[in-house]
Amino acid sequence: MKGSKMDKILRVNMSNLTTAVENVPAEWAGLGGRGLTSAIVAKEVVPTCHPLGEYNKLVFAPGLLSGTAAANSGRLSAGAKSPLTGTIKESNAGGSAAQVFARLGVKALIIEGLPKEAGKFYSLHVNRDGVTISEETELVGKGNFAVVDAVTERLGKKTGIITIGPAGEMKMASANMSVKDPDGKLRSHGRGGLGAVMGSKRIKYISIDDAGAPGVTIADPDKFKAAARTFAKALLDHPVSGEGLPTYGTNVLVNILNEAGGLPTKNFRYGQFEGHDKISGETMYDTIVKRGGKFKHGCHAGCIIQCSQVYTNEKGEYMTSGFEYETIWGMGADCCIDNLDDIATADNIMDDIGVDSIETAVMMGVAMEAGILPFGDGKGVIRLLRDEIGKGTPLGRILGGGAGHVGRTYGVTRVPVVKNQGIPAYDPRSIKGIGITYCTSTMGADHTAGYTIATNILNVGGYVDPLKKDGQVELSRNLQIATAAVDSTGMCIFIAFPALDIPECLPALIDMINARFGINLTGDDVTALGKSILKSERAFNLAAGFTNKDDRLPEFFNTDPVPPHNAVWDFTDEEIDAFWNF
Amino acid sequence: MKGSKMDKILRVNMSNLTTAVENVPAEWAGLGGRGLTSAIVAKEVVPTCHPLGEYNKLVFAPGLLSGTAAANSGRLSAGAKSPLTGTIKESNAGGSAAQVFARLGVKALIIEGLPKEAGKFYSLHVNRDGVTISEETELVGKGNFAVVDAVTERLGKKTGIITIGPAGEMKMASANMSVKDPDGKLRSHGRGGLGAVMGSKRIKYISIDDAGAPGVTIADPDKFKAAARTFAKALLDHPVSGEGLPTYGTNVLVNILNEAGGLPTKNFRYGQFEGHDKISGETMYDTIVKRGGKFKHGCHAGCIIQCSQVYTNEKGEYMTSGFEYETIWGMGADCCIDNLDDIATADNIMDDIGVDSIETAVMMGVAMEAGILPFGDGKGVIRLLRDEIGKGTPLGRILGGGAGHVGRTYGVTRVPVVKNQGIPAYDPRSIKGIGITYCTSTMGADHTAGYTIATNILNVGGYVDPLKKDGQVELSRNLQIATAAVDSTGMCIFIAFPALDIPECLPALIDMINARFGINLTGDDVTALGKSILKSERAFNLAAGFTNKDDRLPEFFNTDPVPPHNAVWDFTDEEIDAFWNF
Repeated sequence: MKGSKMDKILRVNMSNLTTAVENVPAEWAGLGGRGLTSAIVAKEVVPTCHPLGEYNKLVFAPGLLSGTAAANSGRLSAGAKSPLTGTIKESNAGGSAAQVFARLGVKALIIEGLPKEAGKFYSLHVNRDGVTISEETELVGKGNFAVVDAVTERLGKKTGIITIGPAGEMKMASANMSVKDPDGKLRSHGRGGLGAVMGSKRIKYISIDDAGAPGVTIADPDKFKAAARTFAKALLDHPVSGEGLPTYGTNVLVNILNEAGGLPTKNFRYGQFEGHDKISGETMYDTIVKRGGKFKHGCHAGCIIQCSQVYTNEKGEYMTSGFEYETIWGMGADCCIDNLDDIATADNIMDDIGVDSIETAVMMGVAMEAGILPFGDGKGVIRLLRDEIGKGTPLGRILGGGAGHVGRTYGVTRVPVVKNQGIPAYDPRSIKGIGITYCTSTMGADHTAGYTIATNILNVGGYVDPLKKDGQVELSRNLQIATAAVDSTGMCIFIAFPALDIPECLPALIDMINARFGINLTGDDVTALGKSILKSERAFNLAAGFTNKDDRLPEFFNTDPVPPHNAVWDFTDEEIDAFWNF
Repeated sequence: MKGSKMDKILRVNMSNLTTAVENVPAEWAGLGGRGLTSAIVAKEVVPTCHPLGEYNKLVFAPGLLSGTAAANSGRLSAGAKSPLTGTIKESNAGGSAAQVFARLGVKALIIEGLPKEAGKFYSLHVNRDGVTISEETELVGKGNFAVVDAVTERLGKKTGIITIGPAGEMKMASANMSVKDPDGKLRSHGRGGLGAVMGSKRIKYISIDDAGAPGVTIADPDKFKAAARTFAKALLDHPVSGEGLPTYGTNVLVNILNEAGGLPTKNFRYGQFEGHDKISGETMYDTIVKRGGKFKHGCHAGCIIQCSQVYTNEKGEYMTSGFEYETIWGMGADCCIDNLDDIATADNIMDDIGVDSIETAVMMGVAMEAGILPFGDGKGVIRLLRDEIGKGTPLGRILGGGAGHVGRTYGVTRVPVVKNQGIPAYDPRSIKGIGITYCTSTMGADHTAGYTIATNILNVGGYVDPLKKDGQVELSRNLQIATAAVDSTGMCIFIAFPALDIPECLPALIDMINARFGINLTGDDVTALGKSILKSERAFNLAAGFTNKDDRLPEFFNTDPVPPHNAVWDFTDEEIDAFWNF
């Protein structure tokens, strides 16, 4: 595959405050998104380096289809060595930045080095000429919403913005990076603490202006248009992406997971939550309709699934958007909080101070286990977020370090993490496929790396009984391979639902890539790409000192049965390690 | 080797609050001290277990010669999986407990399981009949000095006592276990956070009463007596153990290391400290003499080196004892504090709340790096110890987690640790042999594991130029093998000085072991024992998920030259890994 001649790599060296525009090396020309960020990190970052030191690099890359008219292709990948997990990390987000980068012909932005002058913060401005570095003073210490408002005011509404909040500035391991969405709100590169890497490089925000950009050229426009139409139809025809997600958002899952007994409750003690109805997607939908919010909302132009929403308070004022199941599960069931408004307030604060809402929610469950606040204390969660994490008090520093950090600080043993990353919203004892993903993902515990919930729970792509061990390793492996490839296209993960069930969907996706670049990839090529991404990420982790001993769930999953199925995690080491036999 | 028929293993199960007296399995009969604790941990502890969970075990074992009249044989080994490093851990201490255990015929005390009832604390009482478990309420939350006083009051002055302070109760990763010395003061199993393991098992203290004990039988009393005399003479004849240590204590090293440019200063920025004279052993000696303290003091009956001292304030009141070079270096040069009384006050508080003074001193340097307090702020250190760590405030929890934990909490990259354990008082860039020990020790950064300072700096056992790479791996390997064997005898590490220089010393040590047990070990057997201990410890660590990637110094040692020699750490990975070629 050849990239466009216009394509370029932007490189920023924060040690000497210089920037460069580079040609795209041949080996990277066919890559985008996760495939490219992981290739760059694997090639240029010393695996054993300190994640916050001068040898780590922060890489952004739009997907192969970003910037085109393909539906749902606006995801931006970010990569680095993670300060949370110590592994390689790719985290992708919606918002408008991927499309702006793509229109500028930016294959990747690589940020390396560390500023020499203590304390100074900077901003990067990307346009058709390259990157400029400016010192930033006014916005240092400010929350993400204020940064987006101020930069939009400075540079105009169309400007793409990537920003960190106070958590990223303070290099907290749960810090995320936020991307402006079309409404001036936020989407996040949530997992793995990449906001701390951006903070270590002392970049408060990146603005991206595509004025005069060359735009994306399509090698075969007619073929592209036809494939894009077929693809979009598949997205709209599937009951999950065409109906469930647009209506209830990802939070449609609360009742489904509760029914399945896989909704981790009270720091992973139970699989069902008494208050599930009060925080469910259905309740959220009714509340939004009653208060006059929006139950459908896209995180980037061209999204036709619209799983986001605008959740307002009783006065109709904005509370949050992108109000996801995992956040609501974590602050809700896992912390035993059944007040959706409290959770929305927490979500808003997390967006503003810039911490991953999954890591932070799992962390709050551990903080409750440690006795820092009682289970069920929604107001306490809000207070800790605003007055402790946001202000960087000692307690805030502890909490901002994530679930594992709180566990270590207080000597807690019931700490649901893999590779120090908080385990998300699906209990691996009662939904065993996702446990294999948590164990083996190159990213630490990450449901999106191989979302077996589709097949274990939603009957998408067939059915594998969640309570039995049979078939789970294969399921997770196939999904992780496919996901690594999909994460390279700029596509939202939710295209997986139609891709697994509707025969025309995946060929149409491949056709779009072929039409965009004038090439002839097959399904096998895509699988091979996914495998090679996973293997290179795994190689990085092994070189960083990880072993198969790190591919394990915490011991309480083996010993503590989870109601209602009273299931335990019962895979042997050998069974888990067989994941890598491909 | 056969043990005495009287010998026994004591086993305590905290899960069901039962105890047992067991025969000594044949495979353990010839082992003592570190050899035995590591054998038990390697056999009975799941390497991947949570160090504070129910599958870790805490093991105590006196040395092979403990309880005999052999000089300096009163060290007690403690072993477990370390909550600080995640590795196997042996930490040995003086005090009277080893001798009391030995007279009772207790080869080892093994504590397993976790109490089921939340919050309750217990004490163990060991006597000739076995162990009893009692609930403890009065002393919970109390400092170590109060515990020793109260238990002595309850049970009499001859009682051996092992105790944890508030830090251990709070399961802080820097928590130590303290052992009562003959004067009712404290010696510590300092490194690796074993106090947190004792705290996780909710044992506040262990009392040991040897009334009616069988005592230690000597197979060949005449041979033993002769060898013991030769051995003692060697200890007294060597200039280090016979003169330097008894006069100035271990703190004789401040001026020596400063002169060598290997005294890490300002969180390992420099190799010399302007204020070295004010905290040196010579100044300490003069101060003690002037104030009427004791400059010579033994940590256990039968110690003839007497490197301890009683350091008093201007009114002649007790401030601290066992006032070691590493503590004084760490709170002194590394934190830029040149007031010996401040450091003595800090030492006293650390003893009382029960934290390792090396880990805590290194941690304070990192805390200063993080901006928590300014370099040089002795009063600030005292305040943090007393009001934060001692009280378990959020900041105290951060600090109590050790140097690495503070680094992670504040995003600091200049963090001198190996395997998360603070690097002690000798800069590995300008004294390269000790760097090999830090990297390769199975215990994390630990100078005592293979004290190359002897040969690199003190010209004991020959001389290997500290600034060159040549010979360092071999030096560290030979010393680590020898140390593992010595740590099994109950001997103090300082017998190494005469053992390396005086030809009669090591044969006399072996003769004592042979005479004690009626066997015929050779020097080769002792070397084989040392090798096998290291290998079994290494095997545990590999099974726990460690790799050679963990056998590395932090990256700033490679990049930042340390004055005055402007040396960097320049060993290749291959050169370091060659350590294990034996």
